[in-house]
Amino acid sequence: MTKDKMGVLGENLIGYENSSEGELKFKTFNPLLNEENPWIFCQASSKEVERAAKKAREAFPTFSSLPGSRRAAFLEAIALEMETNRETILETYVAESGLPVGRAEGEFARTLGQINRFANIARTGQWAEPIIDITDNVDIRKTNMPIGPIVVFGASNFPLAFSTAGGDTVSAFAVGCPVLVKAHPMHSGTSSLVAQAIFRAARETEMPDGTFSHLLDWDNSVGEALVKHPEIQAVGFTGSLKGGLALNRFSQERENPIPVFAEMGSINPVVVLPKIIEEQGLHWATALAGSINLGAGQFCTNPGLLIGIEDSSFTTFIDQLADALSEQKPSCMLHPKIFETYRRSVDRMEQLGAIVLHRKQSDETTNFAVPRLVKVPGAMFTGNVELHQEVFGPFSMVVCCRDKEELNKLVANLEGQLTGTILANKEELETYADTIASLQSKVGRLIFNGVPTGVEVCSAMQHGGPYPATTDSRFTSVGDDAVKRWIRPVAFQNWPDPALPAPIQNDNPLNLLRKFNGDYTSQRL
Amino acid sequence: MTKDKMGVLGENLIGYENSSEGELKFKTFNPLLNEENPWIFCQASSKEVERAAKKAREAFPTFSSLPGSRRAAFLEAIALEMETNRETILETYVAESGLPVGRAEGEFARTLGQINRFANIARTGQWAEPIIDITDNVDIRKTNMPIGPIVVFGASNFPLAFSTAGGDTVSAFAVGCPVLVKAHPMHSGTSSLVAQAIFRAARETEMPDGTFSHLLDWDNSVGEALVKHPEIQAVGFTGSLKGGLALNRFSQERENPIPVFAEMGSINPVVVLPKIIEEQGLHWATALAGSINLGAGQFCTNPGLLIGIEDSSFTTFIDQLADALSEQKPSCMLHPKIFETYRRSVDRMEQLGAIVLHRKQSDETTNFAVPRLVKVPGAMFTGNVELHQEVFGPFSMVVCCRDKEELNKLVANLEGQLTGTILANKEELETYADTIASLQSKVGRLIFNGVPTGVEVCSAMQHGGPYPATTDSRFTSVGDDAVKRWIRPVAFQNWPDPALPAPIQNDNPLNLLRKFNGDYTSQRL
Repeated sequence: MTKDKMGVLGENLIGYENSSEGELKFKTFNPLLNEENPWIFCQASSKEVERAAKKAREAFPTFSSLPGSRRAAFLEAIALEMETNRETILETYVAESGLPVGRAEGEFARTLGQINRFANIARTGQWAEPIIDITDNVDIRKTNMPIGPIVVFGASNFPLAFSTAGGDTVSAFAVGCPVLVKAHPMHSGTSSLVAQAIFRAARETEMPDGTFSHLLDWDNSVGEALVKHPEIQAVGFTGSLKGGLALNRFSQERENPIPVFAEMGSINPVVVLPKIIEEQGLHWATALAGSINLGAGQFCTNPGLLIGIEDSSFTTFIDQLADALSEQKPSCMLHPKIFETYRRSVDRMEQLGAIVLHRKQSDETTNFAVPRLVKVPGAMFTGNVELHQEVFGPFSMVVCCRDKEELNKLVANLEGQLTGTILANKEELETYADTIASLQSKVGRLIFNGVPTGVEVCSAMQHGGPYPATTDSRFTSVGDDAVKRWIRPVAFQNWPDPALPAPIQNDNPLNLLRKFNGDYTSQRL
Repeated sequence: MTKDKMGVLGENLIGYENSSEGELKFKTFNPLLNEENPWIFCQASSKEVERAAKKAREAFPTFSSLPGSRRAAFLEAIALEMETNRETILETYVAESGLPVGRAEGEFARTLGQINRFANIARTGQWAEPIIDITDNVDIRKTNMPIGPIVVFGASNFPLAFSTAGGDTVSAFAVGCPVLVKAHPMHSGTSSLVAQAIFRAARETEMPDGTFSHLLDWDNSVGEALVKHPEIQAVGFTGSLKGGLALNRFSQERENPIPVFAEMGSINPVVVLPKIIEEQGLHWATALAGSINLGAGQFCTNPGLLIGIEDSSFTTFIDQLADALSEQKPSCMLHPKIFETYRRSVDRMEQLGAIVLHRKQSDETTNFAVPRLVKVPGAMFTGNVELHQEVFGPFSMVVCCRDKEELNKLVANLEGQLTGTILANKEELETYADTIASLQSKVGRLIFNGVPTGVEVCSAMQHGGPYPATTDSRFTSVGDDAVKRWIRPVAFQNWPDPALPAPIQNDNPLNLLRKFNGDYTSQRL
């Protein structure tokens, strides 16, 4: 194990080569201090992109053929290297994001948890989902195989868990895809530290050169070149609608379009039904206020839309929510530009006719966002899609519907979402079954009497939803099934047993659960 | 059971309504008689498209909520209705395709087999792939749900098995998606008969109005309108590269792009290794000649590319193949236009420098294609992508490589393919392991010592491959996993048990195999 401490690195990592040929240099920004960080980063040149892609292609056959246990060891080594450099990573994280130390620690732990989870997935190998059909005529066996080198875009709002060694990268490593990470410019330093951890882990566990590259990018040109590169076979992205659509367009402009899984945000509607509010209004007002302001509202599952039916309980609830929000502390946003966009977006909602409910107007200090709450009538919301747009920050919009009919119409006209939440008592679960079914058709995850923030990393998680929440609702970027974005099935017909991939060999050397002639079994043939 | 015999119907079916409001009328063509068939078809109007889409949306909540056994009964009723009208369907099939009766019978049987297979899939419900994770903090359960109304395009070369009640349609019905079929103009009569079978089966088994619509289309405008319609959630297509790319473009032009699964053909490379040819050259020449000419070469798995290393055995093998092909009978192609395109495409290959190997030049009678074989050197093939294009018909191109190195280079530069075949003896399986690995990375199905035609409908089948074979190599259009194109996972968080979908309820009423806290079990919780 390398025990040397790391420092922020301004160079790109092209496989096992440090490289800084590009002319464009840039720095990251500390929003807490409202000043630039000291480190200087060098944007990757087109030649560096080319070399990284070529190395990834060359690494692919070897990396993908390794036993899962070898890739598991690589992943576990990444976690250990990160742990060794925990302090530096956390300090840099805070300096580049303005997020509190507690959040950094939580995300660090989550990221390590994800890495070890996918190490386990690599080791067991069940992701191959082997199927064997043997008839008198033919022997056909299918197993999932890695798709090839992929590109991962670091996410502004998750410098660790959805970035360099985040869920996209480690799920791809688990199944044998080399990864080219395009660092998010706002946290290039944090990204460079994690990239070094991956670099060292790859060295220690003897992964082929090109298994991983780390490319710095200031003006998005590196990202475009990567998505358009012929060697790249798929893309993982978490970010804005505009960004995700651009990547999707780049893919469609290729000679051979590739899958782009872009998670592009969501307003995460919460349907607040009358009886639960009558019974527990204050409880839910407090819970929602916390969820709205969590992480300065910079979560893709931030509850940005609260839909209810206008009556006295709902009016009371809105008051309680506005009060509870005013108790929430302003928190630092990721970057001055994000802070400015937040303020402009809220102003725009007011210009569109939204009524201000938040108590505080002008106590914002630089880059610190005060939570804001507005209200619109149901008909106005349904009639103006601009009101449906995500406001990235500690913001939520209350929509007051006249009656259930207007509520149902509103839900039926919602765009695709990552999550939908129902606050209801048991009786309302039945009387509003049609509303709930309609909401279900719009979302990837339905939550009962809870808040949408907090995305559990587990096997049953679905973090994805119909467009425009993501580019493909059939996949998830969180949880074990995240690997499904990077694999494709290959069938082998009448293939000699010793030359078959391990998951579909007769003696089932990986001891997998397999579908054999229609039945699930882990026995050998 | 309705036992009335059906006749060809010139009208569209908009749910349970017969409709013919369009002004454009057209006929189908009998390539055997080289004359138009008598029936007159009425292209769907934009209003009819609108009504069909609206009905599908309205049918979706009910149809998708039915128990799987109800949808299974619907599917089985389709098979019975088709069986009742077998004679009329087969006669019309032959009159509209020019294919021999034996082929029609075989495809009919296959289609019924597929329907009953997907009925079984609907009944058992394992496609839900339920996952349940319960921790101290949270209860998350995920199940697959149908994606919504889909559009299926009839395929010119499979009037039954890849058309109206073909694999796309019945896999979508199995999981609860309403289907709008756009009939292929060349076999609108056959399609109308199968559509009536679906119509009657839907009536008998009380499916909601709009579960199925059948739209006639002469000039492709109906297809475009359907793919662009906001109510449509996914598309299934088997056909040409040009057609598939157009549909994909229509989807990208939508406000909310949708998944388009287009299977766009393939040249299905066969790598013919030296020793097997030395040992069994004549056997494989005969087998390949049959495969090349099967169904007038109009299969997407037609072996259109035979790659070998130039030596005396390979030269003998090519001679044997040319001889064997000359023994094959010319057969009628689907349509005069397809016949003309076939002749032009072969001529084009000759213009590009391919050397003619086939023995017969000019004994073609109207619409009857003579199998053709040409040869090019490896370097010429690698240097000119126009030589890689599919020639739809009984055609194959032999590529002679100087040595293994040139062979490997050629394979590495191949486009994505549905299938790849290796003819090799056991020793060559090892000595050419690198060639085989490279071929594997290009294909959806690898065949050892066989021919690529003949796509077994089973659980392990993969009929799909990297672009341009399909738009998304992660899916298949044949076999049980065809349903995966039409479903998306939805997670339910802390959701009350009685309101959960059946697959993830505590008592496991469907007796499914479920992943529970990491282990597979069919026990109740």
